[in-house]
Amino acid sequence: MSLIVQKYGGSSVADAAGIKRVAARIVETQQAGNQVVAVVSAMGDTTDELLDLAAEITDQAPAREMDILLSAGERMSMSLLAMAIDAAGASAQSFTGSQAGMFTDSLHGQARIIDVSPNRVKSALDRGHIAIVAGFQGMSPESKDITTMGRGGSDTTAVALAAALKADVCEIYTDVDGVYSADPRVVSSARKIDEITSEEMLEMAASGSKILHLRCVEYARRFGVPIHVRSSFSHHEGTWVIPDPNDTIHLEEGQPMEQPIVAGVAHDRSEAKVTVAGVPDIPGKAAAIFNVIADSNANIDMIVQNVSRLESGVTDITFTVPLSEGPAALEALRAHQEEIGFQDLELDKEIGKISLVGAGMRSNPGISAKFFGALRDAGVNSELISTSEIRISVVTRESMLDDAVRAVHTAFGLDTDVEATVYGGTGR
Amino acid sequence: MSLIVQKYGGSSVADAAGIKRVAARIVETQQAGNQVVAVVSAMGDTTDELLDLAAEITDQAPAREMDILLSAGERMSMSLLAMAIDAAGASAQSFTGSQAGMFTDSLHGQARIIDVSPNRVKSALDRGHIAIVAGFQGMSPESKDITTMGRGGSDTTAVALAAALKADVCEIYTDVDGVYSADPRVVSSARKIDEITSEEMLEMAASGSKILHLRCVEYARRFGVPIHVRSSFSHHEGTWVIPDPNDTIHLEEGQPMEQPIVAGVAHDRSEAKVTVAGVPDIPGKAAAIFNVIADSNANIDMIVQNVSRLESGVTDITFTVPLSEGPAALEALRAHQEEIGFQDLELDKEIGKISLVGAGMRSNPGISAKFFGALRDAGVNSELISTSEIRISVVTRESMLDDAVRAVHTAFGLDTDVEATVYGGTGR
Repeated sequence: MSLIVQKYGGSSVADAAGIKRVAARIVETQQAGNQVVAVVSAMGDTTDELLDLAAEITDQAPAREMDILLSAGERMSMSLLAMAIDAAGASAQSFTGSQAGMFTDSLHGQARIIDVSPNRVKSALDRGHIAIVAGFQGMSPESKDITTMGRGGSDTTAVALAAALKADVCEIYTDVDGVYSADPRVVSSARKIDEITSEEMLEMAASGSKILHLRCVEYARRFGVPIHVRSSFSHHEGTWVIPDPNDTIHLEEGQPMEQPIVAGVAHDRSEAKVTVAGVPDIPGKAAAIFNVIADSNANIDMIVQNVSRLESGVTDITFTVPLSEGPAALEALRAHQEEIGFQDLELDKEIGKISLVGAGMRSNPGISAKFFGALRDAGVNSELISTSEIRISVVTRESMLDDAVRAVHTAFGLDTDVEATVYGGTGR
Repeated sequence: MSLIVQKYGGSSVADAAGIKRVAARIVETQQAGNQVVAVVSAMGDTTDELLDLAAEITDQAPAREMDILLSAGERMSMSLLAMAIDAAGASAQSFTGSQAGMFTDSLHGQARIIDVSPNRVKSALDRGHIAIVAGFQGMSPESKDITTMGRGGSDTTAVALAAALKADVCEIYTDVDGVYSADPRVVSSARKIDEITSEEMLEMAASGSKILHLRCVEYARRFGVPIHVRSSFSHHEGTWVIPDPNDTIHLEEGQPMEQPIVAGVAHDRSEAKVTVAGVPDIPGKAAAIFNVIADSNANIDMIVQNVSRLESGVTDITFTVPLSEGPAALEALRAHQEEIGFQDLELDKEIGKISLVGAGMRSNPGISAKFFGALRDAGVNSELISTSEIRISVVTRESMLDDAVRAVHTAFGLDTDVEATVYGGTGR
């Protein structure tokens, strides 16, 4: 008998029909001889509606109270789902974050998990129940207050529970059939990935792939939880995210799987490029700049220092930050212009980032050559380059990004003629 | 400095505007130098909307899950109210039933309070906060599950908190200015009662007065909590419900108040009359009948045994039960007709009950005479009569009920020419 943790997003439980459909699927999984824990998000737009309500009251809601308000969303969906399971002939008990032992720090709105002790969930399973757990929320043992975990919270709840319960798999149900070798909306010939390593999935997520949130992949990798990303609208096999590349969990015993050289192509339109021009080319200036940025709480992604302009004794430093954080970063730098002594600042919002990800890169020379060759042939100019052991990323003009993604996807033989299926929006 | 517990029903916090209005009132109360605990119900129709959602899923929702679903309503209103208070410049913390230490038995949907230990509420007050507490809900220490307390739950929450915190007063905010000597919708000349004893209020509630729920008055009386029933739409003094008739809490020191002979006239349309005809007039038959009713969980109010018909050796036994429970009671009796040996059964739904309530009755002879005189003059025929030390109740035709109430109200000099004010619906 396997223990399966399933996570259903808000779009899967948007209305009574959706809740019944999900309930049927959960019961089916139990009747196939498994123990089932289902982590559920708030119904459809509930969270937005609650935020609107709060906005009618104040635009500076105390974080503690906002978390209490938002946590009501999962309490509704989880109890309704338990009712639907009961009506479908199985028995279920729903648990809030604190009842499920999801203990977090007290950073309201973006709490991090510090401990998971799902005793009540365990005993519910032992008594033959299906356990429903509210995603996205926890409790701070320090303040005894309700907390919420921010974006990707429900996915993280599911993976954390799977780790604590030593579940065989954590199934993340979403509105696509799995992880694709590129965004099907950009590359119609994108292929569904059957298996990808957590390491690769991390790079994909960090490079703009929206399907799984970085935090949940990190957590799954750290605790060795296999994730199966699949659609709640179909029964197709989805994508297995494997912590240990030597496992081939979704395949029959003794049927090893060939590790493809590259996993996929990710792209990201959410960043802006900041150039600090005319920085005195003397030690400590870069440090000074990035201290200022750090104080402005902007998250820097790529950094490039241009070669010093001969004789001038000055250099340019360029980096990327999330679009939303660009203005704050610029403001912070201007405030320290004298002390740092740079000549000029420039914010460029028209950039896009393309990344090629694959564990096979380590052992395969010539990947970069092929990558840049593909970009060149597509007439794509690269403005910034950064690499990891298993990733190459290039910043280019946003207008060129889609061409770039398609060109690289084709160049690495990732194209397929199987049509990708996209069903709807996703929950939190 | 006084400690004041205030309870606001769903109609007072139906929307953002209402929540802000209530917040302003609470802040005002604190700024007048008091510590304030506000118990709040779910917003307007939230509870009905949640029930509709559940009905879309199943018509047999497990009670445990239904309580989790319904309890979400107060979590929204309480956090929004705390936000509004914060926006109004004061500081508030909201607490769920379990956080506020409202411990109940595990009878989901109609849980009874078994213990109240509001430590977190106390410390919030000590730190200068206003404490908001979710009404209607608690937690069973036995099952660790969320429970709800059924009709009048939020009033009971407020009174129980007031008792545990030794509050100076429990203010119940509603949509009328207080308790009236009769239902203003029936008797336009009804007068607002300034002060009434818990004992009288109990009889009024038991006799059909809807303004305070029986449970909360019982609780207030047992623990000596003075209740001030008033409107959240005005600042008028409301009605004080005094546990000890020797207190005159709302008056200046040393200014005793004259106890009126009668407090008011209550009426009730919610009952039906059951007649068991031709019951063998031998010992034990009545017991047999009421055992059967008890097993059917019907709540009997009035009972009359007619004098035995001479020679016939049979008698009739008549009693009243809530309309909704009438059919079940009849069914139960029919199932035991042979064993009890009665001849016939009759259910009469067209009845109404009028009750005259007043602690002064004890010491004043002639009250009954005046009461029945008034009914006679109004042409009202009485079918059943029951009395307590401070109450006379009569069952009559429902069609005659309003006339009866007006006649008795006038006969006891309760009429006033001050117009009663009714503002809207009430919450739970």
